[in-house]
Amino acid sequence: MRGKLITIEGIDGAGKTTQVLRLEQWLESTDERHLITRQPAGTTFGYAVSKLIQHPVHELTPMAELLLFAADRAQHVGTLIDGTLNEGRLVVCDRYTDSTIAYQGYGRGIDLGVIEQLNQLATGGLKPDATIWLEIPPDVAMDRIAERGEADSFDGESLEFWERVHAGYRALADAEPGRVWVVDATQSENRVFRDVLSIVWEVLKR
Amino acid sequence: MRGKLITIEGIDGAGKTTQVLRLEQWLESTDERHLITRQPAGTTFGYAVSKLIQHPVHELTPMAELLLFAADRAQHVGTLIDGTLNEGRLVVCDRYTDSTIAYQGYGRGIDLGVIEQLNQLATGGLKPDATIWLEIPPDVAMDRIAERGEADSFDGESLEFWERVHAGYRALADAEPGRVWVVDATQSENRVFRDVLSIVWEVLKR
Repeated sequence: MRGKLITIEGIDGAGKTTQVLRLEQWLESTDERHLITRQPAGTTFGYAVSKLIQHPVHELTPMAELLLFAADRAQHVGTLIDGTLNEGRLVVCDRYTDSTIAYQGYGRGIDLGVIEQLNQLATGGLKPDATIWLEIPPDVAMDRIAERGEADSFDGESLEFWERVHAGYRALADAEPGRVWVVDATQSENRVFRDVLSIVWEVLKR
Repeated sequence: MRGKLITIEGIDGAGKTTQVLRLEQWLESTDERHLITRQPAGTTFGYAVSKLIQHPVHELTPMAELLLFAADRAQHVGTLIDGTLNEGRLVVCDRYTDSTIAYQGYGRGIDLGVIEQLNQLATGGLKPDATIWLEIPPDVAMDRIAERGEADSFDGESLEFWERVHAGYRALADAEPGRVWVVDATQSENRVFRDVLSIVWEVLKR
């Protein structure tokens, strides 16, 4: 039996990294055969691609960046995710196609039809069995990021940018309620994890 | 006045590199403001991308490779070619969208509609004013490559592969006779260059 694909989504500061790590620890304590991975950079190729994307010298055009993300995704699905699902293992992917829709589409204003085309090409049509959206108001997330003092390529974006990304996730959740599960990420870390786990449990039972 | 874009195409072994070099020397001896560049790797970003494509460790899927070429093209058009044309300069590009159609489409069998989509996205619809196809029978080209003893990512491909790529260029030339100029690349280097130069001259006069 083919494994399930669960993706974890959310804006920076939603606690995604922490929750994915806790999920990994939990899965390792069970007999559930699984793979925890992420986009971009879930393969050695993807890691090289993500270094290219972050390299300040190149100043990528929005379309070049979008196509690079798509190349990373194609490689990741084609050489890792698809085969792992075929082995019957659960795959948990930290970010997937919805990130591109939310960040590049809603956030940066790239045509959503173009993004859908590229997502389709890159994944060969592979959709998640479930997507967990860690939902947090952007101003709360920005405060968290500021506290952490971390830097990534989306740093320095305005609150308006994050609001647009958030609205993108909201639109996806509204459009596909059967796939996208919304978790209130303003709760305590433990409570968020309890919600995440109940969703994973529900998907595995199917 | 916006400059002209001329692309040079052909299978490996057609003498493309030599002709581009001679054209560069000729242009430098004139007052014609120009830029000689190439795809992939016409930008520092593109160079990094081409290293990724050639890196044997990654074993790219055909779609990941196609998307990487597209990313390189988007960056090249967006940060170099388009602006140079706007300065009124002639741009000569060693390989462009037709290479992807011929090599990945006809050669490797990737859906031509997908390639057209990606070419359109990557170039923003920028088409060459003229394309010079250095036409050579694939068996002659393979002999030339064997003599040179060179290696690149398409090495080791069968004669059938090169025949398909050649057929792809033929189809493009037949479909767009007003854009694609066919030059007999089995002629002597000097005669090929004379033909190339007469086409460049014709395009510049327009």
